[in-house]
Amino acid sequence: MCELLGMSANVPTDICFSFSGLMERGGRTGPHKDGFGITFYEGKGFRNFKDADPSCDSAIAKLIRDYPIKSCTVISHIRQANRGRICLENTHPFTRCLWGKNWTFAHNGQLSNYQKKLTIKYHVPIGNTDSELAFCWLLDNVFEKFGRSKPKNMKAVFTYVAKLCDSLRELGVYNMMLTDGEYLLAYCTNNLHWITRKAPFAKASLIDTEMSIDFNQHTTPNDIVTVISTQPLTHNERWHKMAVGESKLLKFGVEV
Amino acid sequence: MCELLGMSANVPTDICFSFSGLMERGGRTGPHKDGFGITFYEGKGFRNFKDADPSCDSAIAKLIRDYPIKSCTVISHIRQANRGRICLENTHPFTRCLWGKNWTFAHNGQLSNYQKKLTIKYHVPIGNTDSELAFCWLLDNVFEKFGRSKPKNMKAVFTYVAKLCDSLRELGVYNMMLTDGEYLLAYCTNNLHWITRKAPFAKASLIDTEMSIDFNQHTTPNDIVTVISTQPLTHNERWHKMAVGESKLLKFGVEV
Repeated sequence: MCELLGMSANVPTDICFSFSGLMERGGRTGPHKDGFGITFYEGKGFRNFKDADPSCDSAIAKLIRDYPIKSCTVISHIRQANRGRICLENTHPFTRCLWGKNWTFAHNGQLSNYQKKLTIKYHVPIGNTDSELAFCWLLDNVFEKFGRSKPKNMKAVFTYVAKLCDSLRELGVYNMMLTDGEYLLAYCTNNLHWITRKAPFAKASLIDTEMSIDFNQHTTPNDIVTVISTQPLTHNERWHKMAVGESKLLKFGVEV
Repeated sequence: MCELLGMSANVPTDICFSFSGLMERGGRTGPHKDGFGITFYEGKGFRNFKDADPSCDSAIAKLIRDYPIKSCTVISHIRQANRGRICLENTHPFTRCLWGKNWTFAHNGQLSNYQKKLTIKYHVPIGNTDSELAFCWLLDNVFEKFGRSKPKNMKAVFTYVAKLCDSLRELGVYNMMLTDGEYLLAYCTNNLHWITRKAPFAKASLIDTEMSIDFNQHTTPNDIVTVISTQPLTHNERWHKMAVGESKLLKFGVEV
C-alpha cells in the first residue's frame, strides 16, 4: 500500500522531524519505495516536491528533511504502487485549483470496480491511478453541488466530501487526506493515527531512525499541532487510532 | 522586471548549466531577487520548485543546479516584483490542469488597465499578479473556444493562444512562455533570445558565473535542444533576438 502523513498547525511549523521518520519507510524501514511527495502551504501559495525514486535515498527528500519549510498545512505520501505504474504523474499528493484555491489530495489503499462508478466531467485525471481518479471525482461532485463561486461555508464543503468518502470506501480501502490549505480532512478506512501536540510539550523519539526532539525548545505555549499518519511515527507518545469510516476535519491544528 | 528561461528538447536533457547562469541573476549578477520557480516535465507528470527567496542564495535553487533532472520541457522564472507582493502564490511559473494535461506559464513584463479587460469565468487566480490573471484569462478563452474535451490538434490551440497574446501585448510589456509539456510557446514583446543546439556541438561559457561546458561530452548526434531566455546566458554562442510580437512554437526542440 502506501503511507500518509498530514499536519495541521496554528502557527507555521516545520515537519522535518516527522518527515525524517516517514522518509525511512520509503525503501529502508518500510516497503513504500515507489516515489514520494509532499505539499506545503504557505499563505495561499504552496510548494509541492515529488520524486518517483524511493524517499530513503532521494536528494529531494534529504533537502526537505534538512531545510525547515514552515507551514500550517502539510500533506505527504510515500508510495507502494498497486494501481498505475511508477512515474511522476502517478505520484501523490495530487494538486488541483478550484475556486482560487489550491487543493491537495493523497490516498492510501486500493479501489476495485471503480471505473464505471467514478465518471468524470470536469477534472480530467493526468495519470492512471485509482487515487487521482477519486480526487477528480470528489472535485467534480463538489463543483456540481456548490457551483462556480467559492462558497462562504467551507466547512459544509468538507462535510459533503466526507459523505462522498463513504461511497468511495464501499469500493475498497480508502484512507485519504484532502486540504484546501486551511481545512485538512482525514478519512479512515483502516489505518490512520493522530496526535495533537500542545502545551505542556514533551520529548519525542522517532520509531524509524535515531532522532529525538524536545518540542519545548521549538514551540511557544500557544502552539497547537496535529499530526495524522498511517502508522505512529514516535514510540513514546500516545497516538489515537481512527475508526472505520471516521473522518477528522482540522483547521489550524484544531478539530472543527 | 523578471527573467524567463525555457527549454524544449527531443531527448530528456538537464538544464543545470543554463539554470546555473540564471540563478546568479536572481540577486547577484541581476536584480531579480523576489523569488524564483522552475517546472520540469517528465512524461505526463511534472515537478515544480519554487522559492520566494532570491535564487542566488536559495537551498532549493542549489539543489536544482546540482541535481540533474532530465526533461524535454522546462520553464523557469526569476522575479523582480512589480504587480503583487513577494510571496509564494505570486511566484512564477504558474501551473493549472486542463484536458488532463498540466499547463505551465511564466511572464516577464507589466500590464496596465487590465482588470476590466481580463474577466475570468472558470480559472480563478490564487494570487494577485497581472501575470497569473493573464494565464487564467488565456485558459478561460481556450476552454471556451475548444470545449471540455482535449482537441486533437494541439497546434491549433497554441496558434490561438499566440493570437490572444497579441491582445495582451496591447496592455503593456508581455513576454511569455506557456507549455502543456509537449508544445512550448514563447511570445515576445521586447526581450527574448533563443538558441538551438544540435550537432556539431561546441563549447559554451556562462556570462554570469565561471562555468563552461563541452556539449559534445553530454550529447548524442541526434540531440536537438532549444533554449529561450530573456537575455543570452552564454557569451561565445550566437543567440537570436525575437522581434516585437513574434511567437515561437516548439515541440521537442524543433519549431513547428
